[in-house]
Amino acid sequence: MANVSDITVSAAINSLSALLFLLAFAIFRLQPMNDRVYFPKWYLKGIREAPSTSGPLVKKFVNLDFRMYLRFLNWVPAALKMPEPELIDHAGLDSAVYIRIYLLGLKIFVPIAILAFGVLLPVNYTGKNFKIMSVSMKDLAFGEIDKFSISNVEPASKRLAAHIVMAYVFTFWTCYVLYKEYKHVTDMRLHFLASQVRRPDQFTVLVRNVPADPDESVSEHVEHFFRVNHPDQYLVHKVVYNANKLAKMVDQKKDLKNRLIYYSNKFERRPDKRPTTKAGFWGLWGKKLDAIHYYTEEIEKLSKEEIVERERVINDPKAVVPAAFVSFRSRWGAAICAQTQQTKNPTRWITMWAPEPRDVYWNNLSIPFLELNVRKLIMGVAFFGLIFCYLFPIAFVQTLANIESIEKVLPFLKPLINRGSVKSFIQGFLPGIVLKIFLLILPMILMEMAKIEGHIAVSILEAKSAGKYHIFLLVNVFLGSIVTGTALQQLKQFLDQSASEIPKTVGLAIPMKATFFITYIMVDGWAGVAAEIFRLVPLVIYHLKNVFLVKTEKDREEAMDPGSLAWPITEPRLQLYFLLGLVYSTVTPLLLPFIIIFFAFAYLVFRHQVINVYNQKYESAASFWPDVHRRILIGLIISQFTLLGLLSTKKAANSTPFLLVLPVLTVWFYKFCKNRFESAFRKFPLQDAMIKDTLERATEPQLDLKSYLKDAYMHPIFKGGEVELMDFDEDDDDFHIVATKRASRRGSQAGTTDCSPDHRNTGFNAV
Amino acid sequence: MANVSDITVSAAINSLSALLFLLAFAIFRLQPMNDRVYFPKWYLKGIREAPSTSGPLVKKFVNLDFRMYLRFLNWVPAALKMPEPELIDHAGLDSAVYIRIYLLGLKIFVPIAILAFGVLLPVNYTGKNFKIMSVSMKDLAFGEIDKFSISNVEPASKRLAAHIVMAYVFTFWTCYVLYKEYKHVTDMRLHFLASQVRRPDQFTVLVRNVPADPDESVSEHVEHFFRVNHPDQYLVHKVVYNANKLAKMVDQKKDLKNRLIYYSNKFERRPDKRPTTKAGFWGLWGKKLDAIHYYTEEIEKLSKEEIVERERVINDPKAVVPAAFVSFRSRWGAAICAQTQQTKNPTRWITMWAPEPRDVYWNNLSIPFLELNVRKLIMGVAFFGLIFCYLFPIAFVQTLANIESIEKVLPFLKPLINRGSVKSFIQGFLPGIVLKIFLLILPMILMEMAKIEGHIAVSILEAKSAGKYHIFLLVNVFLGSIVTGTALQQLKQFLDQSASEIPKTVGLAIPMKATFFITYIMVDGWAGVAAEIFRLVPLVIYHLKNVFLVKTEKDREEAMDPGSLAWPITEPRLQLYFLLGLVYSTVTPLLLPFIIIFFAFAYLVFRHQVINVYNQKYESAASFWPDVHRRILIGLIISQFTLLGLLSTKKAANSTPFLLVLPVLTVWFYKFCKNRFESAFRKFPLQDAMIKDTLERATEPQLDLKSYLKDAYMHPIFKGGEVELMDFDEDDDDFHIVATKRASRRGSQAGTTDCSPDHRNTGFNAV
Repeated sequence: MANVSDITVSAAINSLSALLFLLAFAIFRLQPMNDRVYFPKWYLKGIREAPSTSGPLVKKFVNLDFRMYLRFLNWVPAALKMPEPELIDHAGLDSAVYIRIYLLGLKIFVPIAILAFGVLLPVNYTGKNFKIMSVSMKDLAFGEIDKFSISNVEPASKRLAAHIVMAYVFTFWTCYVLYKEYKHVTDMRLHFLASQVRRPDQFTVLVRNVPADPDESVSEHVEHFFRVNHPDQYLVHKVVYNANKLAKMVDQKKDLKNRLIYYSNKFERRPDKRPTTKAGFWGLWGKKLDAIHYYTEEIEKLSKEEIVERERVINDPKAVVPAAFVSFRSRWGAAICAQTQQTKNPTRWITMWAPEPRDVYWNNLSIPFLELNVRKLIMGVAFFGLIFCYLFPIAFVQTLANIESIEKVLPFLKPLINRGSVKSFIQGFLPGIVLKIFLLILPMILMEMAKIEGHIAVSILEAKSAGKYHIFLLVNVFLGSIVTGTALQQLKQFLDQSASEIPKTVGLAIPMKATFFITYIMVDGWAGVAAEIFRLVPLVIYHLKNVFLVKTEKDREEAMDPGSLAWPITEPRLQLYFLLGLVYSTVTPLLLPFIIIFFAFAYLVFRHQVINVYNQKYESAASFWPDVHRRILIGLIISQFTLLGLLSTKKAANSTPFLLVLPVLTVWFYKFCKNRFESAFRKFPLQDAMIKDTLERATEPQLDLKSYLKDAYMHPIFKGGEVELMDFDEDDDDFHIVATKRASRRGSQAGTTDCSPDHRNTGFNAV
Repeated sequence: MANVSDITVSAAINSLSALLFLLAFAIFRLQPMNDRVYFPKWYLKGIREAPSTSGPLVKKFVNLDFRMYLRFLNWVPAALKMPEPELIDHAGLDSAVYIRIYLLGLKIFVPIAILAFGVLLPVNYTGKNFKIMSVSMKDLAFGEIDKFSISNVEPASKRLAAHIVMAYVFTFWTCYVLYKEYKHVTDMRLHFLASQVRRPDQFTVLVRNVPADPDESVSEHVEHFFRVNHPDQYLVHKVVYNANKLAKMVDQKKDLKNRLIYYSNKFERRPDKRPTTKAGFWGLWGKKLDAIHYYTEEIEKLSKEEIVERERVINDPKAVVPAAFVSFRSRWGAAICAQTQQTKNPTRWITMWAPEPRDVYWNNLSIPFLELNVRKLIMGVAFFGLIFCYLFPIAFVQTLANIESIEKVLPFLKPLINRGSVKSFIQGFLPGIVLKIFLLILPMILMEMAKIEGHIAVSILEAKSAGKYHIFLLVNVFLGSIVTGTALQQLKQFLDQSASEIPKTVGLAIPMKATFFITYIMVDGWAGVAAEIFRLVPLVIYHLKNVFLVKTEKDREEAMDPGSLAWPITEPRLQLYFLLGLVYSTVTPLLLPFIIIFFAFAYLVFRHQVINVYNQKYESAASFWPDVHRRILIGLIISQFTLLGLLSTKKAANSTPFLLVLPVLTVWFYKFCKNRFESAFRKFPLQDAMIKDTLERATEPQLDLKSYLKDAYMHPIFKGGEVELMDFDEDDDDFHIVATKRASRRGSQAGTTDCSPDHRNTGFNAV
């Protein structure tokens, strides 16, 4: 059990490391050569140019204006300055709503903390439990922090009423804030959707599982079906090609090109020595070759193959998958088709809103119904295995990383391994490192699982993998920290305990783990967030690329990696803080300030990142909010049950009925909010569609919708090898100097991938 | 523990009582005077007349044709003769599918029984557990039946593998049969819907929670909204009036009329003595009055009040509730409106398919959104209380029925009560009777709860109360029989046990309760079903009415009470047999023949009843099937867990993983079926709507849909005091002699309730 001084030391260390990151960031971001690492968003929007190149060469890389260093913290007011509507314009609604989650944390926990400090701290501190305990149980060391926690209240004390009342107050307050926030986000979303400019996905529905027809091609079948069943509304459709092989070729070519550029640069710098490479795998072994010549040839060969494959995809009817994007004459028509069932058999002609073009996950569009069900079953079982046996894969890797097995497989390493220091490294650190690596790649594993499950949009994939990650963190980090041991052992322990014992076990462990979680918040929450703003990995990669690959301004642009809000990772982690805050609000209120500092600091940092760094992969108009809402409520319910268990260990069993009311009310509140708000996130109301349609018809009577929609849902591979980005703020140029116009940039980008205009416009218009 | 001879005795008694019921039925049904009790369905359809009245008077009441008595069992082939398509025509799809549930029981359990008898019985019987047990545990008496059950297999025996394999086989067989049945019922439903003649509900959508508008009436608001948002489809609408008070008046008048008829009949029979009544409550006390004069006056007074109230409802804008039935030009338009969301706020303009007119539950149409949520919460809590404290209300009534309290309230009864026989009756039987009465009125309580929950159609009300009854039976009858004590005690017991202990407790008790359940099946399943066909209560009531109220043929028709398939009661009870069969299939296969006899017998009886007796209250086109399917699967999962628990008491813990696979697969199968079939029961596909619309437009181009739909959704109170019945087989007259045409019957019915044609056609056409 840690005491106050332990916590102080830990707080000092973590604050210091956070400060160091911030300081490093403050210095690094002022250097012109890092400009593309710390402000990529502005470059992407085309409203920031490379820093001026006049003056001495050194100025190009290092900022010598020392006055600027004095204002090294001025990113904070800058991050706060941009008002929310402008932020939505600038970075999209998803990002704006995402950073509101941190604000929501503050709204929930600041009043709770004030109340808890005002009411519960004195009640706890004046308790006499430890005086009694210290006599009877000398071996159990209680820390000083526990004096402020519920542990210090003696069993069956009347004081516990204060905790119960506070549990009610906190629950109502949390629900009230959540309700208001849900309402606000719903309004924001509806307003955002209503004020959106015309977008292809507003008119388009994705239809899957088109049944095979012996007489007609998929394209004809789709057209006839919708012409008949949506007679006045059907406009045009686009079939989906299975271009996975082609996509692979394009990737391969890109890779080869990078190598070619690398060697060309090398040659340019040292024209006396012609660079060489090896023919084998990754250029590691095989015959020595002239690199430039070799890669030029390889690229040419691949280009030819690509053209053949491209022709095949376009002309082979088997390359058409039984899915299509069907566009309608009006938003009203699309809203109808997306929300209704088309045929008797619900496994055919499945319609849903088309995701926006850059959000489509093309590989999964053709999975048949039964297979989809089998995949979900298998992934469900695999996920269960992953959670409850999550040490199994690690154990497997660790056995491989074991000294004996290494010696067995690679006997020549034996003398090296048997050296003391190496041995202790392998035995002491390797298992820990393997665990760490596994936890790092876990989100990737979950994402792959979501892909196998067969979802058809990146946003859905992210939402699903976020859901899985949330459960994983809940079971393996929260429960796992409280009840030590692997999840499987915990499960066994819980199964062997009676149902009424489980909350007791957890309730007993909760107050004792407060100091552990405080440390966790400081390490993961404070220092981790500060590391996020420093962006060490992108910084290093950018400079490496800059040295080896970049030749032109365009290359530099490609070397820039803005990253994005890693939603499926950050949101579930964030939920852990809500959970901890709610659980400890009645138990150990001392934890709350740490949570509040985390939320405030993270709010600043992510607001800065969203404004200056992250690039948006897609825009879902905050469709993730119901998930956020639900998960916070899950945290709330867990907190209610832990308090219930804790009080039952305090011989306050007669309080159980009072506390059982809370989860019932919370579940009811959840259902109420679901009925009240969720449909705004899942459906598109006809009235709004009609209003937009009518308005558009009045203002743009000459609009040629057909040609507007014609190429919107083309496989990105046919568009020039990259997903075309469609931003919503085309004429937002009241900032910095606008030099390169987006259109011209696009053109040059497309040109790089050798996709001749002929290919980009042939044969893809099914109607 | 019962032995084989006990069971034999019980079987003999129950078979005998069943046979007696059947015999009584066979004799009674041949008497002409009981014709309307045993064949009301044919009268309702207008294809059976009262038996011929020629010949001696006695022939009118008693059947003297003794040859007919010889063929007293000929109802059985008659019940089986009618082929299914004709049955659907005759009694509706709901009834036809309902009796298929019994057939489904046979399909599942006959092969299971054969396999279980072939494989498990020998395995069990040759087990040696009791030889071992009888040495060590002499006090525990095992019956002979247990020799054939899994109890006779010694712990950790290899023989248990047979049970596990059989559990797999039974699960797969059950799922296979269920899948085929679901598919078949889906096809039947789709075919039924496709071949249905034009019905108002195909074109109509119910819209609720119409928001208040300061400038417009509800009717105008509805019209404008749908004219704008469904421009080409909107046809006409009908607002809903709050006519609850008026309905009460009509009921009251009907009651008074019955009294008037009673006294008139009395006077006719004995013209010398003018009948009198008393003015007070129910004519029990108060001033003596001339009965005929008094009731004629009362009826006149009420008629005047009714006219005033009728005027008020029609003219008072406050009598209009914010709901309306909106009809569209085509089924396509209605399908679209029913399945889409209309506005941003999902709590307003809620649209759903209109129930068919006779299915509407008018009282609940005006409940606002928030109230609906609160009602559901309260009813949820109340239902939880009802299940787990279901002895509380009984305890309360029983205290009232207690000797001391009776003596306190009614002291003059003291001498009577203190007599020995009366005392012992009150103490010995009253509690049991109170419990029995409570169980009898339970479905009514559940129905009232469903009404309070606010569902808007009778079919939904019945489905919801059936769901509640199913849970009640599961917890209080099945679990309650296994783990004795009230549900609340059980819950406490389960909570205090560890999660892994619960299946063990149940598993241990299951084989011991086999004889109890066998007796239960014979009492409730055999004798109970035979009692159903005899219809004692309707028989008595009909003859009472016949004597006191009936004057004309029309009165006799009204006295007839065909009853209906009491879906919310019979279906959950039926599920208990599936559950028992599945649970005992691997444990005590000897129980299976009893189940099979029940299913076969009940199939015969209910087929007969559906053909000859029951009147259909509404037609839902088998929309209850997903519930039936789900509940059988719940039974299957329970059976898997009990076997799991049972085997864990047999020291066969290593079989747990094998058996855990089964529930996972079953849940997956449930989800698969839900995705595959359920939407056919919940939605109406656009393609089918379009086909029907197109066909109709081609065959009946002159159809005036507007006038067809105008009065379909009028509150029944404005239609002549009764819900108008709309059958689907208007021209089905190839059976018996058709004498009274339905149309003329209708007219005379409507005339009886004093509803002048003026009222029936004024002011109700909102458009």
